[in-house]
Amino acid sequence: MESGAGEGPRIEGKCVMADFEFGTGIWAFGQFVDRYAGDGYGPPRSTEEMLDAAAQVPGLTYLDINVPFATEGLSATDVRGMLDDRGLKCRATTPHIYMREYRRGSFTNPDQDLRTRTRARVEEAVEAAAILGAGYVKFWPGQDGYDFPGQVNYEQIWKYTVDGIREICQAHPDVQFAIEYKPKEPRIRMTLANAPKTLLAIQETGVDNLGIVMDFGHSLMAGESPTESLLMINRYGKLTSAELNDNWRDWDDDLPVASVHLFETMEYIIALRDIGWSDPLLLDQFPFREDPVAAVARSIETIKMLDAACARVDRGELVNAQNDQDALEVQRIYWNALLGANAIS
Amino acid sequence: MESGAGEGPRIEGKCVMADFEFGTGIWAFGQFVDRYAGDGYGPPRSTEEMLDAAAQVPGLTYLDINVPFATEGLSATDVRGMLDDRGLKCRATTPHIYMREYRRGSFTNPDQDLRTRTRARVEEAVEAAAILGAGYVKFWPGQDGYDFPGQVNYEQIWKYTVDGIREICQAHPDVQFAIEYKPKEPRIRMTLANAPKTLLAIQETGVDNLGIVMDFGHSLMAGESPTESLLMINRYGKLTSAELNDNWRDWDDDLPVASVHLFETMEYIIALRDIGWSDPLLLDQFPFREDPVAAVARSIETIKMLDAACARVDRGELVNAQNDQDALEVQRIYWNALLGANAIS
Amino acid sequence: MESGAGEGPRIEGKCVMADFEFGTGIWAFGQFVDRYAGDGYGPPRSTEEMLDAAAQVPGLTYLDINVPFATEGLSATDVRGMLDDRGLKCRATTPHIYMREYRRGSFTNPDQDLRTRTRARVEEAVEAAAILGAGYVKFWPGQDGYDFPGQVNYEQIWKYTVDGIREICQAHPDVQFAIEYKPKEPRIRMTLANAPKTLLAIQETGVDNLGIVMDFGHSLMAGESPTESLLMINRYGKLTSAELNDNWRDWDDDLPVASVHLFETMEYIIALRDIGWSDPLLLDQFPFREDPVAAVARSIETIKMLDAACARVDRGELVNAQNDQDALEVQRIYWNALLGANAIS
Amino acid sequence: MESGAGEGPRIEGKCVMADFEFGTGIWAFGQFVDRYAGDGYGPPRSTEEMLDAAAQVPGLTYLDINVPFATEGLSATDVRGMLDDRGLKCRATTPHIYMREYRRGSFTNPDQDLRTRTRARVEEAVEAAAILGAGYVKFWPGQDGYDFPGQVNYEQIWKYTVDGIREICQAHPDVQFAIEYKPKEPRIRMTLANAPKTLLAIQETGVDNLGIVMDFGHSLMAGESPTESLLMINRYGKLTSAELNDNWRDWDDDLPVASVHLFETMEYIIALRDIGWSDPLLLDQFPFREDPVAAVARSIETIKMLDAACARVDRGELVNAQNDQDALEVQRIYWNALLGANAIS
Repeated sequence: MESGAGEGPRIEGKCVMADFEFGTGIWAFGQFVDRYAGDGYGPPRSTEEMLDAAAQVPGLTYLDINVPFATEGLSATDVRGMLDDRGLKCRATTPHIYMREYRRGSFTNPDQDLRTRTRARVEEAVEAAAILGAGYVKFWPGQDGYDFPGQVNYEQIWKYTVDGIREICQAHPDVQFAIEYKPKEPRIRMTLANAPKTLLAIQETGVDNLGIVMDFGHSLMAGESPTESLLMINRYGKLTSAELNDNWRDWDDDLPVASVHLFETMEYIIALRDIGWSDPLLLDQFPFREDPVAAVARSIETIKMLDAACARVDRGELVNAQNDQDALEVQRIYWNALLGANAIS
Repeated sequence: MESGAGEGPRIEGKCVMADFEFGTGIWAFGQFVDRYAGDGYGPPRSTEEMLDAAAQVPGLTYLDINVPFATEGLSATDVRGMLDDRGLKCRATTPHIYMREYRRGSFTNPDQDLRTRTRARVEEAVEAAAILGAGYVKFWPGQDGYDFPGQVNYEQIWKYTVDGIREICQAHPDVQFAIEYKPKEPRIRMTLANAPKTLLAIQETGVDNLGIVMDFGHSLMAGESPTESLLMINRYGKLTSAELNDNWRDWDDDLPVASVHLFETMEYIIALRDIGWSDPLLLDQFPFREDPVAAVARSIETIKMLDAACARVDRGELVNAQNDQDALEVQRIYWNALLGANAIS
Repeated sequence: MESGAGEGPRIEGKCVMADFEFGTGIWAFGQFVDRYAGDGYGPPRSTEEMLDAAAQVPGLTYLDINVPFATEGLSATDVRGMLDDRGLKCRATTPHIYMREYRRGSFTNPDQDLRTRTRARVEEAVEAAAILGAGYVKFWPGQDGYDFPGQVNYEQIWKYTVDGIREICQAHPDVQFAIEYKPKEPRIRMTLANAPKTLLAIQETGVDNLGIVMDFGHSLMAGESPTESLLMINRYGKLTSAELNDNWRDWDDDLPVASVHLFETMEYIIALRDIGWSDPLLLDQFPFREDPVAAVARSIETIKMLDAACARVDRGELVNAQNDQDALEVQRIYWNALLGANAIS
Repeated sequence: MESGAGEGPRIEGKCVMADFEFGTGIWAFGQFVDRYAGDGYGPPRSTEEMLDAAAQVPGLTYLDINVPFATEGLSATDVRGMLDDRGLKCRATTPHIYMREYRRGSFTNPDQDLRTRTRARVEEAVEAAAILGAGYVKFWPGQDGYDFPGQVNYEQIWKYTVDGIREICQAHPDVQFAIEYKPKEPRIRMTLANAPKTLLAIQETGVDNLGIVMDFGHSLMAGESPTESLLMINRYGKLTSAELNDNWRDWDDDLPVASVHLFETMEYIIALRDIGWSDPLLLDQFPFREDPVAAVARSIETIKMLDAACARVDRGELVNAQNDQDALEVQRIYWNALLGANAIS
């Protein structure tokens, strides 16, 4: 819990480039629907077609895979074979606890039977994770929360959330679980909305095998500084995974990296470097109107380009500027790292 | 273009209750999907089942009906028969120019062929409107806009929008058309985003048979005062339809009326009364997790309840308070109208 | 840390009216300035004039008083006398750690000397609190945070925040302190931004005499449900004070109670009742363009009016509806409590 | 009103660098106050001191100057002399119609006497503009609007706005006037809130000597694309002035250029080039916690740096990509222009 920060610079010399490994949610290659284009943004895709697309992205190795699988009847062993054939790996499994059946909630569903079924659905993902060699099982309780002022007993849904998650984690002490927080959508207001609230929930579970999937875009939506949240989660020892993408701040647009925010992406990459992040860096994108292979590839290229720029930052100089809270100097350092001879002096 | 407003009160005595007729989008009774619950919030519904549900809502008479119809193979004459059988009427037809085919835009699609097909799709809705006895054909160009900073040639998509809409309106001079504006979703930023921008677009078309569907919730999302926009659109002679619902301001939640905003709903109802609104008042709701019949019925009940309260407002007293911009006095008047003896003195 | 919530209703019968005592920040009666009206919204006011105004508000007893006092040269004993003369009491003292000197931060100022002076300034408020009989000393670190992406070393300013606050609390183990959180303004992004982040900071201090001032409007701005945050803070045993007001969600408008949000205010009042809140209920208002006495009086009247309505709620019925997450039923209960015979059935 | 846009590219070859002249609001060098730091962010500054500071900014020539001047007793002739002595020029005068006296509105004040005084105050700025050689007189009606739902008679305040502005413009047919729109602050909701609404107001005045000051940051706050609004205002022939700065989208933070938004700044600069903008480019900054000379200088450096990058853009290639709405290709073009050999391929 000690920050290591404080007086004076702690890091000297140039940054070292990260040589990140990359992953993405398999959904980036699937069919998207929304409430208007109910017939989908593009044709349906089988699990195999999605993996074929993933394999085309230069530099992409890892996938976060939804369970049950997109193609009905596939076993985890089948999918493992498909991954192996393509040189892909499974980074995580994400149980579908936010589809029709769970529309009124998964862990917090008012119906006890649905809360029980949530548990069963997570078990499927746990089993698949073992076969697929996943690093963690992700909870994304997107239907847990409320839509109206006054609708719920807040203390009750908090208790349901903490109890439901604790129970599963305790049942599988050797499996790593992680919560991906987000302030809204699909539920109008989600319970596990931001980083500190999710850290409190994890504390209340009292389990050791539960961390956080820190998504850059969800953090922007929550009004956070993504880098501040990344560092806080890491300081609490709960950073299971980190995801990059971008949005316009008011919705989870899941755009390619740095489509909107430059400096915030750069400081995030530098922070990943500072904490020694060596696990895969994930992308969470929904390319509704772009070619998914190109959209994911672009994010990887952009991260590499910005990471190379970050490697040109004099880390001591940057820390000194930040210790002085000298924003103009920080900008000068960033612009110079990016543009070199073309930058401001 | 003269406002009729200015010095001193213009209206005396109590308000008269409105005796509104009510309508809703037929979609309120259909199956919703979103990008998470791709299997839908509830089962699929045929056009007939949707009309059965609509017929169960006390006080509901009118429907805004999407074309093509939900059930494949139905003719407009078939649907007309279904409406007649149930004592329902068609208020508007809305062509599906925002489904898969149009995901990169309808009027503004970069592909000329798609812009042509948009025209053809609207023609279907025009024909259906004639058979169904609709009052207007609605343009809801939800895919027209952009997703990324820098993505489009703004002047070009504006010209496509104005030209495309003008062409259709000119081809059917006896048909009333109307644009429903909205700032975003499904396109991340929509071109016809707010009331004044849409009024400018209408001016640029130069046609007389084109107005606005003024949706309360879209206006909140756009950062407008819905009542101010209603009155401005009306002053320009372009108020083709008015729709009520509610949201949390940051998204088009399509909740039942007054679920969040009390005074803003009351002032809207009073404004409808002031302008002598006698056409149906429409509801635009997406009850993802509620019974649709109950959710729409609740809105009608709430409007009637608030309208009765508005009828207890001394209109001259209210205008005096507003002319003085005396917010505390306006609140006193509203609370008294609502709570009577239970209100603050 | 147990919630007491869970299965089934926990409360039966009608609510009991609260008989709240009321307080407000003394600033409500002072001169406001902003960056445009640098000459102030109204004339300057001395401490005595502010207290004269406060004494005119029916039902107002308590004040949160800034230290140093508005009128230079006044001692705490002088102010105590003025309060006694008017039948007023001091609820809290709030040190001015956000004025010019602290514009680059109080606890997190990059200059060690300013961090030391912050401590000294708080000491003044601690001394004044003793003489004035205040219940707590409030930290409102409005300048602590950052303005630019990349500007600060987040871990450092977090550590400064926790260390600085801990040090003061440890130096005065018999004094109750409380943090008022807020996401922004005057600093563009504030460090102690929301309820769970502030709870984590309090945990990290490890002290027992530090709680939270829970401001309804700040919570709305932070994207929280104020009632959910109130209950969470209370469950952690950290609810030192509760403040009501209202805003448009996107800024700290400090409007009179329920100027915008009805149901959210009602559920907050019911929650105060549920937790047995018996300390004064504070108002945080900035009536820039209204008479301050009238604006504060209006809030008290509105709370009493809504509290009376809440007392007409069948508490068991409400809990049942909330346990079912039945939003339409919750609305029916609220409307009935408000409007009685005029409500929907 | 024809857009000139449409099929295919309209511009070929590389962009030409703009060689902009620069200006800023004189307030950037003054003392800021807000409702917390009522004692100001830094010491008071006389008009002469502000001009001394302005003269230190490399490349800064023009000033937008508030009337009455900061230093009481100065005549316009005095200020003209000070400007000449320092090689500075006056770009615009902005009458103080938003200080204490006008806190309830200038053009829309409910008090007829204040509406008359607004006229008189603007006359002072008109006279000063003649002596100072200003290009236009700016209306910034920051107190015109409302704070509460239901507070005002919207049609009345719109009429007051249009009538009041028309009257002044008609009285000075040889003077160029311009409205700077903004959605909020200091009034919680401002009447002249966005670009299209302001264009409608200008149309309703029916005068020819009234345009718009298009501020990048105000446009972001209004949910607009600043570039789209710039081009629309220009197409209507109403672009009197253009101002750059940056913010976090949710408030008028008045930060240095490109502190948050890269591509949106680049497309704005390219649009200025496309329309042949040759008047000074203004900056609107409030460096609360930075050295004002350094903060304004930084913006000028950044614009020059980004303008040089824009000059490396193949304009035909960019238009082709935008005509295809190919966001990934647009990004590739921008990154290449910025980073050259360091960019993605």
